[in-house]
Amino acid sequence: MTLTLITLDWVPEFPRGFVRDLRVRWALEEIGRAYQVETVPMQPKSDVHRAMQPFGQVPIIRDGDLTLFESGAILLYVGEGTALLPEARRAEITQWLFAALNTVEIASAIWLYKVLAERWPEFFGPPTGEESKAFTRQALKTKLSELQSVIQGHDWIAGDFSLADVAMVDTLRVLAGEGVLDDMPVLSAYVVRAEARPAFVRAMADHMAHWQAADVAMARTA
Amino acid sequence: MTLTLITLDWVPEFPRGFVRDLRVRWALEEIGRAYQVETVPMQPKSDVHRAMQPFGQVPIIRDGDLTLFESGAILLYVGEGTALLPEARRAEITQWLFAALNTVEIASAIWLYKVLAERWPEFFGPPTGEESKAFTRQALKTKLSELQSVIQGHDWIAGDFSLADVAMVDTLRVLAGEGVLDDMPVLSAYVVRAEARPAFVRAMADHMAHWQAADVAMARTA
Repeated sequence: MTLTLITLDWVPEFPRGFVRDLRVRWALEEIGRAYQVETVPMQPKSDVHRAMQPFGQVPIIRDGDLTLFESGAILLYVGEGTALLPEARRAEITQWLFAALNTVEIASAIWLYKVLAERWPEFFGPPTGEESKAFTRQALKTKLSELQSVIQGHDWIAGDFSLADVAMVDTLRVLAGEGVLDDMPVLSAYVVRAEARPAFVRAMADHMAHWQAADVAMARTA
Repeated sequence: MTLTLITLDWVPEFPRGFVRDLRVRWALEEIGRAYQVETVPMQPKSDVHRAMQPFGQVPIIRDGDLTLFESGAILLYVGEGTALLPEARRAEITQWLFAALNTVEIASAIWLYKVLAERWPEFFGPPTGEESKAFTRQALKTKLSELQSVIQGHDWIAGDFSLADVAMVDTLRVLAGEGVLDDMPVLSAYVVRAEARPAFVRAMADHMAHWQAADVAMARTA
Protein backbone atom coordinates (compact mmCIF):
# COMPACT_ATOMS: atom_id res chain seq x y z
CA MET A 1 0.00 0.00 0.00
CA THR A 2 1.25 3.49 -0.78
CA LEU A 3 2.15 5.39 2.34
CA THR A 4 0.79 8.90 2.78
CA LEU A 5 2.99 11.66 4.16
CA ILE A 6 1.12 14.64 5.55
CA THR A 7 2.84 18.02 5.72
CA LEU A 8 1.77 21.68 5.74
CA ASP A 9 0.17 23.34 2.72
CA TRP A 10 2.58 26.29 2.86
CA VAL A 11 5.30 27.77 5.07
CA PRO A 12 7.25 31.06 4.90
CA GLU A 13 10.75 31.06 3.40
CA PHE A 14 12.79 30.56 6.58
CA PRO A 15 11.80 27.02 7.63
CA ARG A 16 11.92 25.65 4.07
CA GLY A 17 14.53 22.91 3.96
CA PHE A 18 13.96 22.23 7.66
CA VAL A 19 10.29 21.24 8.00
CA ARG A 20 10.44 17.73 9.37
CA ASP A 21 8.62 16.05 6.53
CA LEU A 22 12.12 16.20 4.97
CA ARG A 23 13.56 13.51 7.23
CA VAL A 24 10.63 11.18 6.50
CA ARG A 25 11.00 11.77 2.75
CA TRP A 26 14.73 11.05 3.15
CA ALA A 27 14.19 7.74 4.95
CA LEU A 28 11.54 6.67 2.42
CA GLU A 29 13.90 7.50 -0.46
CA GLU A 30 16.68 5.51 1.22
CA ILE A 31 14.52 2.40 1.42
CA GLY A 32 12.87 3.01 -1.96
CA ARG A 33 9.34 3.10 -0.61
CA ALA A 34 6.76 4.99 -2.66
CA TYR A 35 4.66 7.63 -0.92
CA GLN A 36 2.12 10.29 -1.71
CA VAL A 37 1.84 13.71 -0.08
CA GLU A 38 -1.25 15.29 1.47
CA THR A 39 -1.42 18.63 3.22
CA VAL A 40 -3.07 20.34 6.15
CA PRO A 41 -3.36 24.14 6.46
CA MET A 42 -0.54 25.91 8.25
CA GLN A 43 -2.94 28.56 9.58
CA PRO A 44 -5.44 28.16 11.08
CA LYS A 45 -4.89 24.56 12.16
CA SER A 46 -7.82 22.42 11.04
CA ASP A 47 -9.87 20.04 13.18
CA VAL A 48 -8.83 17.24 10.82
CA HIS A 49 -5.20 18.07 11.59
CA ARG A 50 -5.75 18.29 15.36
CA ALA A 51 -7.55 14.94 15.31
CA MET A 52 -4.41 13.33 13.85
CA GLN A 53 -1.85 15.47 15.68
CA PRO A 54 -2.98 17.20 18.88
CA PHE A 55 -0.02 19.63 18.82
CA GLY A 56 -0.84 20.76 15.26
CA GLN A 57 2.61 19.70 14.06
CA VAL A 58 3.88 17.80 11.03
CA PRO A 59 4.95 15.31 9.76
CA ILE A 60 2.19 12.73 10.10
CA ILE A 61 2.00 9.49 8.13
CA ARG A 62 -0.94 7.29 7.24
CA ASP A 63 -0.30 3.66 6.36
CA GLY A 64 -3.46 1.59 6.02
CA ASP A 65 -5.34 1.98 9.30
CA LEU A 66 -2.40 3.52 11.14
CA THR A 67 -1.96 7.26 11.61
CA LEU A 68 1.32 8.17 13.25
CA PHE A 69 3.16 11.37 14.23
CA GLU A 70 6.53 12.32 15.80
CA SER A 71 9.33 12.03 13.28
CA GLY A 72 11.34 9.75 15.59
CA ALA A 73 8.48 7.26 15.84
CA ILE A 74 7.82 7.51 12.09
CA LEU A 75 11.48 6.74 11.36
CA LEU A 76 11.37 3.65 13.60
CA TYR A 77 8.11 2.55 11.95
CA VAL A 78 9.17 2.94 8.31
CA GLY A 79 12.68 1.64 9.07
CA GLU A 80 11.39 -1.63 10.55
CA GLY A 81 12.69 -4.62 8.58
CA THR A 82 14.89 -2.46 6.32
CA ALA A 83 18.62 -1.80 6.04
CA LEU A 84 18.08 1.46 7.99
CA LEU A 85 17.35 -0.56 11.15
CA PRO A 86 19.27 -3.84 11.06
CA GLU A 87 18.15 -6.13 13.88
CA ALA A 88 21.68 -6.66 15.21
CA ARG A 89 22.05 -2.93 15.84
CA ARG A 90 18.49 -2.08 16.88
CA ALA A 91 19.32 -0.94 20.42
CA GLU A 92 22.38 1.04 19.32
CA ILE A 93 20.51 2.80 16.49
CA THR A 94 17.61 3.61 18.79
CA GLN A 95 20.10 5.03 21.30
CA TRP A 96 21.51 7.44 18.69
CA LEU A 97 18.05 8.35 17.46
CA PHE A 98 17.19 9.54 20.98
CA ALA A 99 20.64 11.16 21.33
CA ALA A 100 19.78 13.26 18.26
CA LEU A 101 16.21 14.15 19.25
CA ASN A 102 16.72 14.62 22.98
CA THR A 103 20.36 15.23 24.02
CA VAL A 104 21.59 17.13 20.94
CA GLU A 105 18.33 18.82 19.96
CA ILE A 106 17.57 20.12 23.47
CA ALA A 107 21.06 21.64 23.75
CA SER A 108 20.51 23.06 20.26
CA ALA A 109 17.03 24.44 20.99
CA ILE A 110 18.06 26.26 24.20
CA TRP A 111 20.64 28.26 22.23
CA LEU A 112 18.89 28.38 18.84
CA TYR A 113 15.65 29.90 20.13
CA LYS A 114 17.61 32.86 21.49
CA VAL A 115 19.09 33.41 18.03
CA LEU A 116 15.78 32.89 16.20
CA ALA A 117 13.98 35.25 18.59
CA GLU A 118 16.45 38.01 17.68
CA ARG A 119 15.76 37.39 14.02
CA TRP A 120 12.03 36.66 13.99
CA PRO A 121 10.45 37.85 17.25
CA GLU A 122 7.02 37.60 15.60
CA PHE A 123 7.45 33.80 15.59
CA PHE A 124 9.78 33.14 18.51
CA GLY A 125 8.93 35.95 20.92
CA PRO A 126 11.17 38.64 22.43
CA PRO A 127 14.79 37.41 22.57
CA THR A 128 15.53 38.17 26.20
CA GLY A 129 14.25 39.26 29.60
CA GLU A 130 10.92 38.77 31.34
CA GLU A 131 8.93 39.04 28.08
CA SER A 132 10.93 36.16 26.65
CA LYS A 133 10.32 34.09 29.75
CA ALA A 134 6.59 34.80 29.57
CA PHE A 135 6.46 34.00 25.84
CA THR A 136 8.27 30.68 26.19
CA ARG A 137 6.15 29.77 29.22
CA GLN A 138 3.02 30.43 27.16
CA ALA A 139 4.37 28.30 24.28
CA LEU A 140 4.94 25.49 26.78
CA LYS A 141 1.46 25.94 28.29
CA THR A 142 -0.07 25.67 24.82
CA LYS A 143 1.67 22.32 24.26
CA LEU A 144 0.53 21.16 27.70
CA SER A 145 -3.08 22.18 26.98
CA GLU A 146 -2.95 20.17 23.78
CA LEU A 147 -1.57 17.21 25.72
CA GLN A 148 -4.28 17.65 28.32
CA SER A 149 -6.94 17.28 25.60
CA VAL A 150 -5.48 13.86 24.77
CA ILE A 151 -5.41 12.59 28.35
CA GLN A 152 -8.81 14.03 29.32
CA GLY A 153 -11.14 11.11 30.07
CA HIS A 154 -8.33 8.53 30.15
CA ASP A 155 -6.05 7.24 32.88
CA TRP A 156 -3.07 6.71 30.59
CA ILE A 157 -1.89 8.05 27.28
CA ALA A 158 -2.03 4.93 25.09
CA GLY A 159 -4.36 2.25 26.44
CA ASP A 160 -3.06 0.66 29.62
CA PHE A 161 -0.10 2.12 31.53
CA SER A 162 2.94 1.91 29.23
CA LEU A 163 6.47 3.14 28.57
CA ALA A 164 4.91 6.27 27.14
CA ASP A 165 3.49 7.16 30.56
CA VAL A 166 6.86 6.59 32.26
CA ALA A 167 8.53 9.05 29.88
CA MET A 168 5.68 11.56 29.76
CA VAL A 169 5.08 11.69 33.51
CA ASP A 170 8.78 11.93 34.28
CA THR A 171 8.99 14.85 31.82
CA LEU A 172 5.97 16.53 33.46
CA ARG A 173 7.11 16.03 37.07
CA VAL A 174 9.64 18.86 36.99
CA LEU A 175 6.95 21.17 35.57
CA ALA A 176 4.53 20.11 38.30
CA GLY A 177 7.23 21.02 40.84
CA GLU A 178 7.55 24.47 39.22
CA GLY A 179 3.79 25.09 39.47
CA VAL A 180 3.24 25.01 35.70
CA LEU A 181 0.48 22.40 36.03
CA ASP A 182 -1.37 24.20 38.87
CA ASP A 183 -4.22 25.33 36.58
CA MET A 184 -4.20 22.08 34.58
CA PRO A 185 -6.23 19.60 36.63
CA VAL A 186 -6.16 16.79 34.07
CA LEU A 187 -2.36 16.80 33.81
CA SER A 188 -1.91 17.32 37.57
CA ALA A 189 -4.14 14.31 38.27
CA TYR A 190 -2.26 12.28 35.64
CA VAL A 191 1.05 12.93 37.41
CA VAL A 192 -0.44 12.20 40.86
CA ARG A 193 -2.02 8.98 39.55
CA ALA A 194 1.30 7.82 38.09
CA GLU A 195 3.29 8.74 41.19
CA ALA A 196 0.88 6.67 43.30
CA ARG A 197 1.81 3.46 41.48
CA PRO A 198 3.70 1.10 43.80
CA ALA A 199 6.46 0.73 41.21
CA PHE A 200 7.02 4.50 41.15
CA VAL A 201 7.01 4.68 44.95
CA ARG A 202 9.65 1.93 45.17
CA ALA A 203 11.76 3.49 42.41
CA MET A 204 11.70 6.92 44.04
CA ALA A 205 12.52 5.51 47.48
CA ASP A 206 15.53 3.66 46.05
CA HIS A 207 16.58 6.70 44.02
CA MET A 208 16.53 8.98 47.08
CA ALA A 209 18.19 6.34 49.30
CA HIS A 210 21.03 6.23 46.77
CA TRP A 211 21.79 9.95 47.25
CA GLN A 212 21.42 9.67 51.01
CA ALA A 213 23.93 6.83 51.09
CA ALA A 214 26.25 8.99 48.97
CA ASP A 215 25.99 11.80 51.53
CA VAL A 216 26.84 9.37 54.34
CA ALA A 217 29.82 7.97 52.42
CA MET A 218 31.04 11.51 51.73
CA ALA A 219 30.69 12.55 55.40
CA ARG A 220 32.65 9.47 56.46
CA THR A 221 35.47 10.38 54.05
CA ALA A 222 35.56 14.05 55.05
CA MET B 1 20.94 -12.15 34.06
CA THR B 2 20.71 -9.23 36.46
CA LEU B 3 20.64 -5.93 34.66
CA THR B 4 23.03 -3.21 35.82
CA LEU B 5 21.86 0.39 36.06
CA ILE B 6 24.66 2.95 36.10
CA THR B 7 24.04 6.35 37.67
CA LEU B 8 26.15 9.08 39.29
CA ASP B 9 27.95 8.57 42.60
CA TRP B 10 26.54 11.80 44.06
CA VAL B 11 24.56 14.88 43.00
CA PRO B 12 23.69 18.12 44.85
CA GLU B 13 20.25 18.47 46.43
CA PHE B 14 18.41 20.15 43.56
CA PRO B 15 18.39 17.40 40.91
CA ARG B 16 17.57 14.64 43.40
CA GLY B 17 14.25 13.11 42.41
CA PHE B 18 14.88 14.10 38.78
CA VAL B 19 18.09 12.34 37.74
CA ARG B 20 17.00 10.11 34.89
CA ASP B 21 18.01 6.83 36.47
CA LEU B 22 14.62 7.27 38.17
CA ARG B 23 12.62 6.54 35.03
CA VAL B 24 14.63 3.38 34.35
CA ARG B 25 14.17 2.23 37.95
CA TRP B 26 10.44 2.92 37.56
CA ALA B 27 10.10 0.86 34.38
CA LEU B 28 12.11 -2.01 35.90
CA GLU B 29 9.89 -1.97 39.01
CA GLU B 30 6.77 -1.99 36.80
CA ILE B 31 7.92 -5.14 35.02
CA GLY B 32 9.41 -6.72 38.13
CA ARG B 33 12.90 -7.06 36.74
CA ALA B 34 15.78 -7.22 39.24
CA TYR B 35 18.69 -4.85 38.79
CA GLN B 36 21.84 -3.77 40.53
CA VAL B 37 23.24 -0.25 40.67
CA GLU B 38 26.77 0.86 39.83
CA THR B 39 28.07 4.42 39.83
CA VAL B 40 30.39 6.70 37.93
CA PRO B 41 31.84 9.93 39.42
CA MET B 42 29.81 13.09 38.89
CA GLN B 43 33.00 15.19 38.78
CA PRO B 44 35.38 14.80 37.09
CA LYS B 45 33.86 12.47 34.49
CA SER B 46 35.92 9.29 34.22
CA ASP B 47 37.32 7.71 31.08
CA VAL B 48 35.31 4.59 31.90
CA HIS B 49 32.16 6.74 31.91
CA ARG B 50 33.04 8.52 28.63
CA ALA B 51 33.74 5.18 26.97
CA MET B 52 30.17 4.10 27.75
CA GLN B 53 28.50 7.51 27.35
CA PRO B 54 30.34 10.11 25.26
CA PHE B 55 28.25 12.99 26.68
CA GLY B 56 29.10 12.01 30.28
CA GLN B 57 25.42 11.60 31.09
CA VAL B 58 23.40 8.97 32.96
CA PRO B 59 21.55 6.62 33.00
CA ILE B 60 23.41 3.82 31.28
CA ILE B 61 22.48 0.14 31.49
CA ARG B 62 24.53 -2.98 31.00
CA ASP B 63 22.78 -6.22 30.13
CA GLY B 64 25.14 -9.05 29.23
CA ASP B 65 27.29 -7.75 26.37
CA LEU B 66 25.09 -4.73 25.69
CA THR B 67 25.84 -1.26 27.08
CA LEU B 68 23.11 1.25 26.30
CA PHE B 69 22.39 4.91 27.09
CA GLU B 70 19.60 7.45 26.39
CA SER B 71 16.65 6.88 28.70
CA GLY B 72 14.22 6.66 25.75
CA ALA B 73 16.22 3.87 24.15
CA ILE B 74 16.65 2.12 27.50
CA LEU B 75 12.88 2.22 28.07
CA LEU B 76 12.23 0.68 24.64
CA TYR B 77 14.87 -1.99 25.33
CA VAL B 78 13.71 -3.04 28.78
CA GLY B 79 10.04 -2.73 27.78
CA GLU B 80 10.39 -5.14 24.85
CA GLY B 81 8.11 -8.15 25.28
CA THR B 82 6.48 -6.76 28.44
CA ALA B 83 3.12 -5.21 29.30
CA LEU B 84 4.76 -1.77 29.07
CA LEU B 85 5.10 -2.17 25.29
CA PRO B 86 2.29 -4.37 23.96
CA GLU B 87 2.89 -5.28 20.34
CA ALA B 88 -0.54 -4.05 19.20
CA ARG B 89 0.27 -0.54 20.41
CA ARG B 90 4.00 -0.42 19.63
CA ALA B 91 3.81 2.44 17.11
CA GLU B 92 1.42 4.48 19.25
CA ILE B 93 3.49 4.05 22.42
CA THR B 94 6.68 4.94 20.54
CA GLN B 95 4.92 8.04 19.19
CA TRP B 96 4.10 9.25 22.71
CA LEU B 97 7.57 8.39 23.97
CA PHE B 98 9.00 10.77 21.37
CA ALA B 99 6.25 13.32 22.08
CA ALA B 100 7.47 13.36 25.71
CA LEU B 101 11.20 13.50 24.99
CA ASN B 102 11.14 15.79 21.96
CA THR B 103 7.94 17.87 21.62
CA VAL B 104 7.11 18.38 25.30
CA GLU B 105 10.63 18.36 26.71
CA ILE B 106 12.01 20.84 24.17
CA ALA B 107 9.16 23.28 24.90
CA SER B 108 9.84 22.66 28.59
CA ALA B 109 13.62 23.13 28.34
CA ILE B 110 13.44 26.44 26.45
CA TRP B 111 11.43 27.94 29.32
CA LEU B 112 12.87 25.95 32.21
CA TYR B 113 16.50 26.83 31.55
CA LYS B 114 15.64 30.52 31.89
CA VAL B 115 14.13 29.79 35.31
CA LEU B 116 16.98 27.52 36.42
CA ALA B 117 19.58 30.07 35.29
CA GLU B 118 17.99 32.67 37.55
CA ARG B 119 18.17 30.24 40.46
CA TRP B 120 21.52 28.48 39.85
CA PRO B 121 23.61 30.56 37.42
CA GLU B 122 26.67 28.54 38.49
CA PHE B 123 25.14 25.51 36.74
CA PHE B 124 22.94 27.03 34.03
CA GLY B 125 24.75 30.24 33.17
CA PRO B 126 23.55 33.85 33.27
CA PRO B 127 19.76 33.98 32.86
CA THR B 128 19.55 36.50 30.04
CA GLY B 129 21.38 38.63 27.49
CA GLU B 130 24.53 38.05 25.46
CA GLU B 131 26.25 36.19 28.30
CA SER B 132 23.38 33.72 28.37
CA LYS B 133 23.59 33.24 24.61
CA ALA B 134 27.34 32.65 24.83
CA PHE B 135 26.93 30.19 27.73
CA THR B 136 24.24 28.12 26.00
CA ARG B 137 26.23 28.16 22.74
CA GLN B 138 29.24 26.81 24.63
CA ALA B 139 27.10 24.10 26.27
CA LEU B 140 25.89 23.10 22.80
CA LYS B 141 29.45 23.14 21.42
CA THR B 142 30.56 20.83 24.23
CA LYS B 143 27.87 18.30 23.28
CA LEU B 144 28.86 18.60 19.63
CA SER B 145 32.55 18.04 20.47
CA GLU B 146 31.59 14.90 22.34
CA LEU B 147 29.52 13.77 19.35
CA GLN B 148 32.45 14.53 17.06
CA SER B 149 34.65 12.17 19.08
CA VAL B 150 32.17 9.37 18.31
CA ILE B 151 32.00 10.02 14.56
CA GLN B 152 35.75 10.64 14.13
CA GLY B 153 37.13 7.88 11.93
CA HIS B 154 33.70 6.60 10.87
CA ASP B 155 31.37 7.50 8.04
CA TRP B 156 28.19 6.88 10.04
CA ILE B 157 27.21 6.80 13.65
CA ALA B 158 26.24 3.13 14.12
CA GLY B 159 27.78 0.85 11.50
CA ASP B 160 26.28 1.40 8.04
CA PHE B 161 24.06 4.38 7.29
CA SER B 162 20.93 4.05 9.44
CA LEU B 163 17.88 5.82 10.86
CA ALA B 164 20.20 7.29 13.48
CA ASP B 165 22.07 9.20 10.78
CA VAL B 166 18.83 10.52 9.27
CA ALA B 167 17.79 11.95 12.63
CA MET B 168 21.24 13.14 13.71
CA VAL B 169 22.15 14.82 10.42
CA ASP B 170 18.75 16.48 10.15
CA THR B 171 19.24 17.82 13.69
CA LEU B 172 22.74 19.09 12.81
CA ARG B 173 21.78 20.71 9.48
CA VAL B 174 20.22 23.78 11.07
CA LEU B 175 23.35 24.23 13.21
CA ALA B 176 25.56 23.90 10.11
CA GLY B 177 23.45 26.65 8.53
CA GLU B 178 24.06 28.86 11.57
CA GLY B 179 27.84 28.38 11.36
CA VAL B 180 28.05 26.37 14.59
CA LEU B 181 29.94 23.53 12.87
CA ASP B 182 32.44 25.80 11.08
CA ASP B 183 35.32 24.83 13.39
CA MET B 184 34.17 21.19 13.64
CA PRO B 185 35.52 19.48 10.51
CA VAL B 186 34.41 15.96 11.45
CA LEU B 187 30.78 16.99 11.97
CA SER B 188 30.79 19.31 8.94
CA ALA B 189 32.07 16.48 6.75
CA TYR B 190 29.46 14.12 8.25
CA VAL B 191 26.65 16.49 7.25
CA VAL B 192 28.12 17.03 3.77
CA ARG B 193 28.56 13.27 3.28
CA ALA B 194 24.94 12.63 4.27
CA GLU B 195 23.55 15.44 2.13
CA ALA B 196 25.38 13.98 -0.88
CA ARG B 197 23.39 10.74 -0.70
CA PRO B 198 21.07 10.43 -3.71
CA ALA B 199 18.14 9.74 -1.39
CA PHE B 200 18.73 13.02 0.47
CA VAL B 201 19.08 14.94 -2.81
CA ARG B 202 15.76 13.56 -4.08
CA ALA B 203 14.02 14.18 -0.75
CA MET B 204 15.24 17.78 -0.57
CA ALA B 205 14.28 18.46 -4.21
CA ASP B 206 10.76 17.17 -3.59
CA HIS B 207 10.53 19.05 -0.28
CA MET B 208 11.49 22.37 -1.91
CA ALA B 209 9.28 21.72 -4.96
CA HIS B 210 6.35 21.29 -2.59
CA TRP B 211 6.78 24.82 -1.19
CA GLN B 212 7.34 26.28 -4.66
CA ALA B 213 4.11 24.68 -5.85
CA ALA B 214 2.39 26.18 -2.80
CA ASP B 215 3.67 29.65 -3.75
CA VAL B 216 2.36 29.21 -7.29
CA ALA B 217 -1.03 28.04 -6.03
CA MET B 218 -1.19 31.01 -3.65
CA ALA B 219 -0.26 33.49 -6.40
CA ARG B 220 -2.97 32.00 -8.64
CA THR B 221 -5.55 32.49 -5.87
CA ALA B 222 -4.43 36.02 -4.97
